[in-house]
Amino acid sequence: MAVGSGELPKMFPVQGFQLATGCAGIKVPGRRDLVIMALAEGAEIATVFTRNAFCAAPVQLAKKHGADSSQSGKGVRYLLTNTGNANAGTGEQGLKDALQTCASLAAIAAVDVEQVLPFSTGVIGEPLPIEPILAALPTTFSTLDENAWAAAAEGILTTDTRAKGASRQIEIDGETVTVTGIAKGAGMIRPDMATMLAYVATDAVCAPQDLQQILNGAVNKSFNRITVDGDTSTNDSLVLVATGQVDVEPIHSKDGARFVEAIEQVCIELAQAIVRDGEGATKFVSVEVAGGASVAECLQVAYTVADSPLVKTALFASDPNWGRILAAIGRAGVDGLDVEKIKVWLDDVLIAEGGGRALSYTEQAGQQVMDQEELTIRIELARGDIVETVWTTDLSYDYIRINAEYRT
Amino acid sequence: MAVGSGELPKMFPVQGFQLATGCAGIKVPGRRDLVIMALAEGAEIATVFTRNAFCAAPVQLAKKHGADSSQSGKGVRYLLTNTGNANAGTGEQGLKDALQTCASLAAIAAVDVEQVLPFSTGVIGEPLPIEPILAALPTTFSTLDENAWAAAAEGILTTDTRAKGASRQIEIDGETVTVTGIAKGAGMIRPDMATMLAYVATDAVCAPQDLQQILNGAVNKSFNRITVDGDTSTNDSLVLVATGQVDVEPIHSKDGARFVEAIEQVCIELAQAIVRDGEGATKFVSVEVAGGASVAECLQVAYTVADSPLVKTALFASDPNWGRILAAIGRAGVDGLDVEKIKVWLDDVLIAEGGGRALSYTEQAGQQVMDQEELTIRIELARGDIVETVWTTDLSYDYIRINAEYRT
Repeated sequence: MAVGSGELPKMFPVQGFQLATGCAGIKVPGRRDLVIMALAEGAEIATVFTRNAFCAAPVQLAKKHGADSSQSGKGVRYLLTNTGNANAGTGEQGLKDALQTCASLAAIAAVDVEQVLPFSTGVIGEPLPIEPILAALPTTFSTLDENAWAAAAEGILTTDTRAKGASRQIEIDGETVTVTGIAKGAGMIRPDMATMLAYVATDAVCAPQDLQQILNGAVNKSFNRITVDGDTSTNDSLVLVATGQVDVEPIHSKDGARFVEAIEQVCIELAQAIVRDGEGATKFVSVEVAGGASVAECLQVAYTVADSPLVKTALFASDPNWGRILAAIGRAGVDGLDVEKIKVWLDDVLIAEGGGRALSYTEQAGQQVMDQEELTIRIELARGDIVETVWTTDLSYDYIRINAEYRT
Repeated sequence: MAVGSGELPKMFPVQGFQLATGCAGIKVPGRRDLVIMALAEGAEIATVFTRNAFCAAPVQLAKKHGADSSQSGKGVRYLLTNTGNANAGTGEQGLKDALQTCASLAAIAAVDVEQVLPFSTGVIGEPLPIEPILAALPTTFSTLDENAWAAAAEGILTTDTRAKGASRQIEIDGETVTVTGIAKGAGMIRPDMATMLAYVATDAVCAPQDLQQILNGAVNKSFNRITVDGDTSTNDSLVLVATGQVDVEPIHSKDGARFVEAIEQVCIELAQAIVRDGEGATKFVSVEVAGGASVAECLQVAYTVADSPLVKTALFASDPNWGRILAAIGRAGVDGLDVEKIKVWLDDVLIAEGGGRALSYTEQAGQQVMDQEELTIRIELARGDIVETVWTTDLSYDYIRINAEYRT
């Protein structure tokens, strides 16, 4: 299941950023499960990774290689992604395996091993099958192409039912600047830093510290605002690349805000696409918490509602069982919550106020909103003026099926 | 579904504690949905209630009546329970309705209204149907009986598939002291103070402050250590009664510890019975976290594992997908976790150490444990010597069915 049409939008190529997709047969023979991305010399990169303490071997190595190649001044040149195996919970051997795939690609591409960052996604706790990956690298490498975004968007998927991409072009100082990105992820989704895997690239010039700042800001409006099942992955990784092939530096121009906005929009579109393709999803739900005294308490309430199995099963049933929403708000752990002042809406239908059902509420009005494929649960806390929104899905039989049968 | 045989054990009557079950037809015509419990004059009572900010009208009123009757010195004489409607999220009207049911029972029993504590469980956010309750009170009242524990255990159920009871008799100073209790609850179970509804009674003498202290201790070993879906209810209430009909005061005798232990055992047995009857449960799982630096961090890890939808679906599938357990531990938010030192067992099978799969581990050994109906996930953090255990279930298709169809 998935929400919305899900067609990949037009993916504008990014100058100085090539992609190639290959077939190593890691989990399913014949499946495209290997993606190489090549960055032009001089490209800058910003990254965010999972905060899960059991972060995967490729995450550990990508952090190290990123730091090393920045220090040497040579910069990152390749991103190597495999699906079908997360190389997480694999200890020392996992680090060796990840390093070997990087070394092999580095040899083919004639760069230093530190210039290659590894990414893995798939089952946790099984050794990375290294031979088929090494065998598939040369052929895959030979097909690098600036117009291969759509194929790469397919190549990074696991339990996803469809490819996820977003793309923007903006004019800055008479030059066309492109921002294009792809992402994967459908389950184990409640990013604490980034989503499972996402890659965004622009051909504009951007200094590394600016790039990292833009990325951190964008992440907190996108990937750090979604949840499918509350389970933060061991492999979450997000990369933002600026190839510098188009000769403008937007962030230090009068159009800086538009550039930041374009990157944010691409990140939001990708993050929402992950939720729309959430495992077993039949609904796309925005949980908007307004009137909070802090960002933290807004998110606390929003995530408690968004991750509540009882709220999620009611959403699956299209049942306006708003009592479950109140119960979730009440247990979110916000100190001194005045339930008399809290209001809750389904879209524009006021359902609860004064600690109970709104006088104007009718079951029919609630049902009408619930029958929609997309809806907003809006909560007013009346404690301040902070507003935060998170996006989530319902909890369906298919979520159970997908995750109970995952390894069979 | 439910785990284990689930037969009600022998329920020893408690002197000075009578029960009666009636039929108000609140949600389902003909269903036993009304329970009155009568406490002998002079009985002492201790209570714990939900910490959910949206606590239900009966919870608010039970707290108030408890305080008032203690102040007047008259004491609580009746506990009035209805199922089929939680009278939660019902605002001012909910409080009036709860008060009216108490007033009606008080009139029949010729006591003050403050001597009656109300309890409700069922759907949230719908007005309490007061007329059928008032109509059923007199007949129900006329059947009060010390030997009616089993019928009352049936009478307080909602989505539960079976009655839950526990009973102990111990000899103290030559007198037989009885501790008997019943509980209900299957979904919206992650008590923050008590479970949905549980009543435990003893016929020994016990002063109120002693009784409350015993109850607080017992709750933290039982009802505050279980989770079905992480959703804390609006109506959790637990009552411990000491009728004082047997003329010993165990807590101030040399047998004080055995008395406390008997109450704890009854509470643990009831709490575990709720998990075994968890909505859609096919497995009963103990999550034991050892080697913690504090109770808080042990519980943080234990609940993150116990509430993870991915761990729970793997349990449902009997899939030893231990990578999901590692991922849950890693995202539990414990600062400075050294993943190299963490060990994880399924029963006695070591599955993970040193950040990856244990060398001695075989899929067959893991599978053998997973195939059992009851199993323990044991986690060693190697940071201290605190041990905490929580009990939980798997997440199955039936959980979705029960909660998606709840109001239909």
